[in-house]
Amino acid sequence: MSKKISIAIDAMGGDNSPEKTIEGINIFLDKNAYKGDFILNIFGKEDDINKRLKKTNINENLINIIHSNTVVSDKESPMTAVKNSKNTSMWNCINHQLEGKSDISLSAGNTGVLLVISRMILKMMSEVSKPALAGLWPSQSGTSVVLDLGANIECNTENLIDFSELGSALFKSLYPNGTPKVSLLNVGSEEIKGTEIIKSASKKLKDLSNENNFIYKGYIEGNNIMSGNSNVIVTDGFTGNIALKTAEGTASFITKNLKKSLTENLFTKMSLIFSYFSLKKFRDKLDPRKYNGAIFLGLNGPVVKSHGGIDPIGFYYSIDLCYKIIKGNLMSQIRKNLKHSKSVR
Amino acid sequence: MSKKISIAIDAMGGDNSPEKTIEGINIFLDKNAYKGDFILNIFGKEDDINKRLKKTNINENLINIIHSNTVVSDKESPMTAVKNSKNTSMWNCINHQLEGKSDISLSAGNTGVLLVISRMILKMMSEVSKPALAGLWPSQSGTSVVLDLGANIECNTENLIDFSELGSALFKSLYPNGTPKVSLLNVGSEEIKGTEIIKSASKKLKDLSNENNFIYKGYIEGNNIMSGNSNVIVTDGFTGNIALKTAEGTASFITKNLKKSLTENLFTKMSLIFSYFSLKKFRDKLDPRKYNGAIFLGLNGPVVKSHGGIDPIGFYYSIDLCYKIIKGNLMSQIRKNLKHSKSVR
Repeated sequence: MSKKISIAIDAMGGDNSPEKTIEGINIFLDKNAYKGDFILNIFGKEDDINKRLKKTNINENLINIIHSNTVVSDKESPMTAVKNSKNTSMWNCINHQLEGKSDISLSAGNTGVLLVISRMILKMMSEVSKPALAGLWPSQSGTSVVLDLGANIECNTENLIDFSELGSALFKSLYPNGTPKVSLLNVGSEEIKGTEIIKSASKKLKDLSNENNFIYKGYIEGNNIMSGNSNVIVTDGFTGNIALKTAEGTASFITKNLKKSLTENLFTKMSLIFSYFSLKKFRDKLDPRKYNGAIFLGLNGPVVKSHGGIDPIGFYYSIDLCYKIIKGNLMSQIRKNLKHSKSVR
Repeated sequence: MSKKISIAIDAMGGDNSPEKTIEGINIFLDKNAYKGDFILNIFGKEDDINKRLKKTNINENLINIIHSNTVVSDKESPMTAVKNSKNTSMWNCINHQLEGKSDISLSAGNTGVLLVISRMILKMMSEVSKPALAGLWPSQSGTSVVLDLGANIECNTENLIDFSELGSALFKSLYPNGTPKVSLLNVGSEEIKGTEIIKSASKKLKDLSNENNFIYKGYIEGNNIMSGNSNVIVTDGFTGNIALKTAEGTASFITKNLKKSLTENLFTKMSLIFSYFSLKKFRDKLDPRKYNGAIFLGLNGPVVKSHGGIDPIGFYYSIDLCYKIIKGNLMSQIRKNLKHSKSVR
């Protein structure tokens, strides 16, 4: 039997934790316990966790609770994090991973602190110039990977090449039968558009493009991120963060106004009776909880950050993401891809 | 009686022109002819224009057709534009404005060429470090100005300060009773976030903030562009272009999927009977045609670029935008604001 997928979960990070995180774990166990091919290492206050965990019918080998008395505060700054976060539930997760006892860590806690201590404890892969934060976006043809979402506000050509390899490896681990199609986010699709950094990255990506690692599809503009023609969208962390949040803001603006329109009077409320199931399908497809979880790539092991304000279902999706990433052999995909890009450069 | 508002319109630019542009002009005349305080200088093929223009009941003093035999091609590159676009309808518009016969120019033609020849003919204001392309965005509290949308892919601190003054002047010309509230687009709201350029611009904007020109509201993240707390959003042209297009792409992705959901079967189609008027109100509020027209600021006179693919109603909105900008004294607002920022720097 092959080695179990081992996931370290910080049960204490984010709003309403550990209620929310344990509820998410319960959902994950309900759906996946029968597989028996994983173990969840849960870090936090043991009593609290035990009280909330639904253990009926769950094989005890699937769960391992490791008591951690302290929690990283939401107000903690990344600068002082290393000093103040030792032995918190978050720290103990990453440390467990460093010791080889977990394959991946998941936390809904303080983002800045998570990035700093992950990087400090796990260390950057020697082949990588900078680590990146990747996210999943819905698209017309399924799901795309977008990176960097904010780990590096300024990036050079080498960083963008590394992000392309890291993002393609992530895509491949999530969709083993798919082909990563990389595009650089830019202000136009013509070759002369963009900064010198982007233009030189584009040239190198053309040389690297092949069926085994990724196909390079050229530049992509903001309005085509969700078209599905490319499924790995690469950009610097400043632009990626602005794009992600602008998309979130636009989606919330539209759905808020739509909701208001569809509930403003008796007639519109009646209309909901007829369109209920279709609107539910529509909402399900775009449900942001399904895309919960930003993946920190380029360290000696992946770390997933869940939204702090997400609900139990959203947290469940981020556990599921961790499971899939490891099942899809992310780290060997990454090593294979990085070897590929070094071979050409 | 005060001087008439004089608008130069390139009737030949964009898809389906001059049908589309003249149809837009007809709508504008229908709604505004009674005011009698403007003149539309229409550039293009005289016969074509005359054939389509609805002149019934329209005072001839409101229209002035100036024959231009050639048109800037969509394929023309900005590099060769100056050589090849002389005496086109677009060129003649800007030249009319240079001669003081128009206050503003409007074209739905080739964007790159329009920016290049506007800049060459009208020249940059001596007080401005770089011109910028501004757009209007819907927000929870009305409409916001966002700039730069792509005229400058790299910007320094001084550029961002100038954009704040230019954007505030535009806002004030459109909403004389409103107060411009400026924010810098950034990856976080805390002071330590962002590039050195943004941080130093933020410091200077704090010093410049006052009731007469604009109130500086600090950083804004992408998800809050449409919140309405700030109404002048300032960023470099690379980021602004990505944000604008990502918002467009997200909106179109959502509405496409919603439409599919609401028309997929008999029940959902029945629901439309009950929600028709509310959905129409919802669609009207977000109608992108209402926000058609990017304003090129920082030259010795404003130039408006309409979307090339827009329909007659959208083109009508961009004529209306030109009318409002001049009625609101944009250029004197700009001069007043630039004086203000030089006084502190």
